[in-house]
Amino acid sequence: MIVVMKPGSTPENLSAVVKKIESAGLRTHLSKGEEVTIVGVIGDKKIIANLELQMMAGVDKTVRITEKYKLVSRDFHPEDTIVEAGGIKIGGKEVVVMAGPCAVESLEQLREAAQAVKACGAKFLRGGAFKPRTSPYDFQGLGEEGLKLLRKVADEFDLRVVTEIVDKDDIEIFCKYADILQVGARNMQNFQMLKALGKCSKPVMLKRGLSATISEWLNAAEYIMSGGNEQVIFCERGIRTYETFTRNTLDLSAVAAVKELSHLPIVVDPSHGTGRWKMVAPMARAALAAGADGLIIEVHPNPEKALSDGDQSLTPEAFKELMSSLDGIAKVMGRSIS
Amino acid sequence: MIVVMKPGSTPENLSAVVKKIESAGLRTHLSKGEEVTIVGVIGDKKIIANLELQMMAGVDKTVRITEKYKLVSRDFHPEDTIVEAGGIKIGGKEVVVMAGPCAVESLEQLREAAQAVKACGAKFLRGGAFKPRTSPYDFQGLGEEGLKLLRKVADEFDLRVVTEIVDKDDIEIFCKYADILQVGARNMQNFQMLKALGKCSKPVMLKRGLSATISEWLNAAEYIMSGGNEQVIFCERGIRTYETFTRNTLDLSAVAAVKELSHLPIVVDPSHGTGRWKMVAPMARAALAAGADGLIIEVHPNPEKALSDGDQSLTPEAFKELMSSLDGIAKVMGRSIS
Amino acid sequence: MIVVMKPGSTPENLSAVVKKIESAGLRTHLSKGEEVTIVGVIGDKKIIANLELQMMAGVDKTVRITEKYKLVSRDFHPEDTIVEAGGIKIGGKEVVVMAGPCAVESLEQLREAAQAVKACGAKFLRGGAFKPRTSPYDFQGLGEEGLKLLRKVADEFDLRVVTEIVDKDDIEIFCKYADILQVGARNMQNFQMLKALGKCSKPVMLKRGLSATISEWLNAAEYIMSGGNEQVIFCERGIRTYETFTRNTLDLSAVAAVKELSHLPIVVDPSHGTGRWKMVAPMARAALAAGADGLIIEVHPNPEKALSDGDQSLTPEAFKELMSSLDGIAKVMGRSIS
Amino acid sequence: MIVVMKPGSTPENLSAVVKKIESAGLRTHLSKGEEVTIVGVIGDKKIIANLELQMMAGVDKTVRITEKYKLVSRDFHPEDTIVEAGGIKIGGKEVVVMAGPCAVESLEQLREAAQAVKACGAKFLRGGAFKPRTSPYDFQGLGEEGLKLLRKVADEFDLRVVTEIVDKDDIEIFCKYADILQVGARNMQNFQMLKALGKCSKPVMLKRGLSATISEWLNAAEYIMSGGNEQVIFCERGIRTYETFTRNTLDLSAVAAVKELSHLPIVVDPSHGTGRWKMVAPMARAALAAGADGLIIEVHPNPEKALSDGDQSLTPEAFKELMSSLDGIAKVMGRSIS
Repeated sequence: MIVVMKPGSTPENLSAVVKKIESAGLRTHLSKGEEVTIVGVIGDKKIIANLELQMMAGVDKTVRITEKYKLVSRDFHPEDTIVEAGGIKIGGKEVVVMAGPCAVESLEQLREAAQAVKACGAKFLRGGAFKPRTSPYDFQGLGEEGLKLLRKVADEFDLRVVTEIVDKDDIEIFCKYADILQVGARNMQNFQMLKALGKCSKPVMLKRGLSATISEWLNAAEYIMSGGNEQVIFCERGIRTYETFTRNTLDLSAVAAVKELSHLPIVVDPSHGTGRWKMVAPMARAALAAGADGLIIEVHPNPEKALSDGDQSLTPEAFKELMSSLDGIAKVMGRSIS
Repeated sequence: MIVVMKPGSTPENLSAVVKKIESAGLRTHLSKGEEVTIVGVIGDKKIIANLELQMMAGVDKTVRITEKYKLVSRDFHPEDTIVEAGGIKIGGKEVVVMAGPCAVESLEQLREAAQAVKACGAKFLRGGAFKPRTSPYDFQGLGEEGLKLLRKVADEFDLRVVTEIVDKDDIEIFCKYADILQVGARNMQNFQMLKALGKCSKPVMLKRGLSATISEWLNAAEYIMSGGNEQVIFCERGIRTYETFTRNTLDLSAVAAVKELSHLPIVVDPSHGTGRWKMVAPMARAALAAGADGLIIEVHPNPEKALSDGDQSLTPEAFKELMSSLDGIAKVMGRSIS
Repeated sequence: MIVVMKPGSTPENLSAVVKKIESAGLRTHLSKGEEVTIVGVIGDKKIIANLELQMMAGVDKTVRITEKYKLVSRDFHPEDTIVEAGGIKIGGKEVVVMAGPCAVESLEQLREAAQAVKACGAKFLRGGAFKPRTSPYDFQGLGEEGLKLLRKVADEFDLRVVTEIVDKDDIEIFCKYADILQVGARNMQNFQMLKALGKCSKPVMLKRGLSATISEWLNAAEYIMSGGNEQVIFCERGIRTYETFTRNTLDLSAVAAVKELSHLPIVVDPSHGTGRWKMVAPMARAALAAGADGLIIEVHPNPEKALSDGDQSLTPEAFKELMSSLDGIAKVMGRSIS
Repeated sequence: MIVVMKPGSTPENLSAVVKKIESAGLRTHLSKGEEVTIVGVIGDKKIIANLELQMMAGVDKTVRITEKYKLVSRDFHPEDTIVEAGGIKIGGKEVVVMAGPCAVESLEQLREAAQAVKACGAKFLRGGAFKPRTSPYDFQGLGEEGLKLLRKVADEFDLRVVTEIVDKDDIEIFCKYADILQVGARNMQNFQMLKALGKCSKPVMLKRGLSATISEWLNAAEYIMSGGNEQVIFCERGIRTYETFTRNTLDLSAVAAVKELSHLPIVVDPSHGTGRWKMVAPMARAALAAGADGLIIEVHPNPEKALSDGDQSLTPEAFKELMSSLDGIAKVMGRSIS
């Protein structure tokens, strides 16, 4: 950390700052400029993190130099991590596609969707059984019954299951039915759930919060990893901006950023990321070209009848067309699909 | 809801849309313009909410006309609601001030803070016992021990307790020690916790999410009210924008918006809302002038030693000065403090 | 400026950085931490501003410590500046109110508006003659004819004129008719116009850009001041955020920020800042309580017939009511209106 | 346009609204729901655009149904437009790459850059002669001398010239030296300059404003086209969000959106869009995969010595590597480079 002193600060201000830092067991390094004096703070990150100097007399501001996350950082783990879920590798040479309806509605709906996505090369069946909805009056999902349907249908079609968990009390039951536990955008900083997931044996897919910075996202993953669960996958799903044409603004530069800062895999959700089914295909292609390790895409056997998000779901036909166009991009990137 | 058909849509497209709406038990009303045809959807809000028409052939877009929240809405409850917590009224003629340190650190710290804020007219002691922190390596709070200290010290100084809950499993224990349970910005859409708080007997103060719209915020309150707990207080604490000079952008127009749309009281947090102690006083004054029913302010007996957020805490002296300046504003607004 | 070296950087990387800095005539100061080495850069701000080090081998990032603006800064001019326009002081003890229609439409409309605002204590008549509109098909203003009407009517009612300039070629003509030249949000970084206004003899009111940071805004004012025109007034008019209930998010903390960082006066525009006439009064009161030196408010004799922005204009009656409530707030702030 | 009446509005309110609409020469269509009545407004877009009804008694809100731009819209011109600049087609089968330094610094610098980018297949030389800079103390460009150097060097290497214009008074001189006149983000709503460019004979590349919506951007292009100049190219260059890791948030979904809404070509600027040279290559690839018609990329023969934006410029070596990887993506998209 760097402490910037104000132009008019006194030598007494400076020595008080230095004293406070040193009495916390840290070292200081002074740099006197023409206008301002700067104090470098050297030592244990954790102690620095809790050292608050901004209010001290003569202090202009403090600037953090290093990030707090460690286990998540590529600095501490230079090679790419490959997460394995239900025998499928994520983060390796193969690009993994997860697909299915937004919400689990019925056995028939799920079977139709599973058949369609399996036929096109998807490895995971996605679908929400517990849905976090803005209004309490919206459809909230089938609950455990939905999880059972997911598992049953996935097994029928040799698919794996990825589904969203919204309550830490449900971890045990999710571990029974799902291969990847997804943390949704609204729960990215539900730290109690993240800590509990740190003790869990299944991989966790951590979606980026609606307005989370890259740094906050990586720190949220650190909550899971520091609990002992090293199987974390990031998922970019669009951030909230002023633009209203799209539901969210899909931030594909986050793919490049995560690849630079972390060793963990990252997948992209172009369905929620745009909220418009016509944009799913171009954004899915762009995600792979940006370096994503996978995609999670909404496919509904009959989007016109979907109980939620119908406007962003692909038909099986549109999904098939997309998958064939992804193949070429994957090859250019030195990877493959299916 | 309004369905806007595309310029080139066919009569068949239109009749399919009409048929779908009517088969859901709703009524339609057609309006044919020169360029576009519009279908009005009439009937039960809940059914409309789950009717997805965007993907249908010939449909350009759908536009929602009415909000989903009801219990929270001023339309359904025209008079102001006064919430009573520990015998103190919030939302009435008196402006209520809640003050104290960001985090509970020790009995001594809390006593000093409580004495200072009580002396200046605060009615509530605030302080975090369970802290949601961006990094797992930051100070996470004293836990239940902190709650006990809060209650003990508040009672000593005849103050009430407001403190943040981060886990629905802790509701029972919070109800034992606190007068108001605060839901933090990161948990505004932790719907499981909101549902559980809907069953709780204590008032809930719902902070606005980092990037929550007014509409989402009111819908989040609807989760609590629809569960049976009608004692909800809103708290504006700044939203996330591109500006970096302040920690957040305090949105005081949200005070006027909430007053227009809802009957529930609203308080403002200028400490987190700006992140800079120098701005707390002007923003506190502005909040009252905008119509806020109360303020929640960070006061630390020794901000330079605070374990978190030291940069935004007021000293007891600065708090005293602020409180005396607030008095005049309150009077102009036809209200009083203390 | 601070240069942060990467954890794995070599001594050669470091000496190359030091060499580059020193060969630009600047001095360096090294601070070696446990994980990272930091290089402080000392010397002339302008040279530092153009020194690009981020691409050099071993460099992690650079952090700017001081702002570039000087003339605008309170550091260089600790006392408040009072701008005088048409004999009216802005930034002094008196709070100045500017009011009138969004666009100049006719002599009758302007006269009615002027009479109403004068009667309530406004000092300036506002109104657009040249309107920057999102679509080329929207009403673009009456042009020079509008300026003439403004001057004529203002003189009739002993008011001053503030109006928006959108083209640097019009400066001469604006100086003839207006007392304050307003730069709109869309032109805040129209640097050619700012430079030209730096040569002009009339005060300039610089509205904040739709997504301008405080720092960019102050730097834009520096363009005007460095050209020789020291009569600059800031105007906060709301920033663009994700919220859609209001037209913009009025950032009243910008008032406190500008007061801290600069000596120049600042007024607030609650009409464009909210886009909703019901919110104008609470936000106007809040602006004064936050420390604003003035207000600019849309008043239309017949808002239902206004050619633009009718939804955010006050009727003369609503304006009258607002003005009387502002008086009390001004007094609490140690100021007065009219 | 749709007018939504309030739940408690009276029949008199409704008939006043209807009367106002009809007296403007428009037609109405009523739709009475259980809670609200809706009035559809039918007729000439331009008249509707200037009809303000929000302030009328009983009106809740108005909702615009159709966009105002016409010439820019794909509805009015279903086939893709191919813009031709200096004999090079933009928007056709071939993906066009524009490259060069941020600012023109010297003949030597430009020659080195031009040689490098030409060798790799770029068709346009980019470089700023007039630079819009946040601070008046930053390097502002070489001016007309820079334009001359651009032309001279481009001709030497059989390249075309694209460069930013910041002042409408310079259009004539720009037309003399440049093949495409670029409008920067800060000037996207400098309507005076857009109108003047509408009279100009050279193609215009219109960068998206820092916080411009897709709709505002298309309307800005309508200013140019409605003036008579139909040669407009869009350029996505990142929008302003809360994220600070990247300089801007490159919004690649804007590529898909523009392709859906307009017939005009669109290029992407991954250099300004990310502000980090390491991200330029992945984002350039992603842009092509999203459907972009071209790229504009900063290449500096010696980025460590660049006078501005050194941190986002590619070295000639990095550019060469990028270009070879783009080839594969272009082919998958059914296009080619060079």
